[in-house]
Amino acid sequence: MKKYLVRPEPNNPALTQRVDGVDHANNAINTLVPVECPLTLFLNSQEIVTVMTIGDFPEDLALGFLLNQNMLTGEDIVTAVEHEPDINVVVVRTERETDFEDKLSKKTRTSGCAQGTAFGDVMEKFESVVLPDAPLKTSWLYALSKAINTTPSLYLEAGAIHGCVLCERDKPLVYMEDVGRHNAVDKVAGYMYRTGLSAINKIMYTTGRLTSEMIIKTVQMEIPILVSRSGFTAWGVELARQANLTLIGRTKGKRFVALSGSHRIEYDADPEIVPSEAGHIQRKGSRKPDAD
Amino acid sequence: MKKYLVRPEPNNPALTQRVDGVDHANNAINTLVPVECPLTLFLNSQEIVTVMTIGDFPEDLALGFLLNQNMLTGEDIVTAVEHEPDINVVVVRTERETDFEDKLSKKTRTSGCAQGTAFGDVMEKFESVVLPDAPLKTSWLYALSKAINTTPSLYLEAGAIHGCVLCERDKPLVYMEDVGRHNAVDKVAGYMYRTGLSAINKIMYTTGRLTSEMIIKTVQMEIPILVSRSGFTAWGVELARQANLTLIGRTKGKRFVALSGSHRIEYDADPEIVPSEAGHIQRKGSRKPDAD
Repeated sequence: MKKYLVRPEPNNPALTQRVDGVDHANNAINTLVPVECPLTLFLNSQEIVTVMTIGDFPEDLALGFLLNQNMLTGEDIVTAVEHEPDINVVVVRTERETDFEDKLSKKTRTSGCAQGTAFGDVMEKFESVVLPDAPLKTSWLYALSKAINTTPSLYLEAGAIHGCVLCERDKPLVYMEDVGRHNAVDKVAGYMYRTGLSAINKIMYTTGRLTSEMIIKTVQMEIPILVSRSGFTAWGVELARQANLTLIGRTKGKRFVALSGSHRIEYDADPEIVPSEAGHIQRKGSRKPDAD
Repeated sequence: MKKYLVRPEPNNPALTQRVDGVDHANNAINTLVPVECPLTLFLNSQEIVTVMTIGDFPEDLALGFLLNQNMLTGEDIVTAVEHEPDINVVVVRTERETDFEDKLSKKTRTSGCAQGTAFGDVMEKFESVVLPDAPLKTSWLYALSKAINTTPSLYLEAGAIHGCVLCERDKPLVYMEDVGRHNAVDKVAGYMYRTGLSAINKIMYTTGRLTSEMIIKTVQMEIPILVSRSGFTAWGVELARQANLTLIGRTKGKRFVALSGSHRIEYDADPEIVPSEAGHIQRKGSRKPDAD
């Protein structure tokens, strides 16, 4: 079995914190919660943004953010990615000056709060992507859901976190977590860029909702299939159809719904033998999962 | 029983869209998803931001966003809020020019993607708030959860949406929904400002996670109690403790966890007689809820 290239580190003490509180019966409790700390991204000498993150893979987060915002393009040569942990800063350096100042003035004005969607030249890239005709077997989909939901994670330990997993066939390869679902997908993008991992036969699995921005990022990353446990928005569906992206949501147990690109799906599994997942996605110390 | 002042409108055809797809058994389906459309906010002649929203209560969203970003303060007199639906724009006009240009240059550089957290003078306001010592009875908490979870909503009809509910004692009063949890809380803030609703004895209930930004917004709105179905981050807990905010999460059935301000909680209900909520928060057409 192919192993994870990146997997969650629920036992990394830098990523969670123990806090005291009380429960519903007024009993003192001590529980684990994910950390959330600011990280400021620079592109050369230009400050771009401060994101809130659990703090792992800061270099991949910075690269992926800049790539997904089209502030770094294929023409830019990255010469260094410097993380300064004492001041929570990552500086991405490129060979030539990028045209980020001009872009920044366009982007920040149109960046959606709590969405981060940028239009303008982000959509230009989006419209030029031709996604490959990679298949998705339903047996892979069921195997992926099971593997991801049973992999030890910060989500299972501490809740309140999103996961984004780059997969190939029935194997999850790169499983990133973060307090923001956008950070998780940006970290995957940065990792792919840094390691040269191909997008052509990949599947992106996210715990987050399939909003417009998640579709735009997946398409820009040239990944042909996007799967979520969660639901859709109408504009997300419209963009997925425009881009010929296979868009699958509400994936739980045997169930899923495909609202775009269903021609890639090969129904090779009997859904009736897929167990309900009630048991294996429960957080420790909780009766229900609570990431959102 | 006190009625909702604002409640979700799951039957408003402007807020959802029907889309075709296929399910896990390769059957054609037709399902309901929430709309997601851009809305650009102006403060006087200055373009501030474009947010993605379901589109209801655009004036409250604009006012609440500007208030929660401290771009509008108590010293500013709002003279008009103009919604132009044909171009998806809201213009908020004030008597005197605000100092937004200066603020904008500070804010957009520090605004967290997919988080929207702004520091600088947002934190100044946060630090000056003194929250009132309003009580929270656990019987209210259980009644609120039940009332909110059984109120017909876009979430129950179409999924993939967040709710934010302003409550008083055991009564939900203002229940806003949106594709972003930040929009939902901003709409509540705008509604409170517009109608002069007092924050002093209120409880904020959110379906979203208790990240730093949600704590900052609730404190700025001067609401002393914040409750969520979902989980915590460490920084959210730290900020809540700094501000003396009662912070309750993982609220499901009889269970909840309070990680800050538990002195406001009065345990007047027997948790053992609270029914498990497995049944009543399920979306139509789905076996599991999927908002996140």
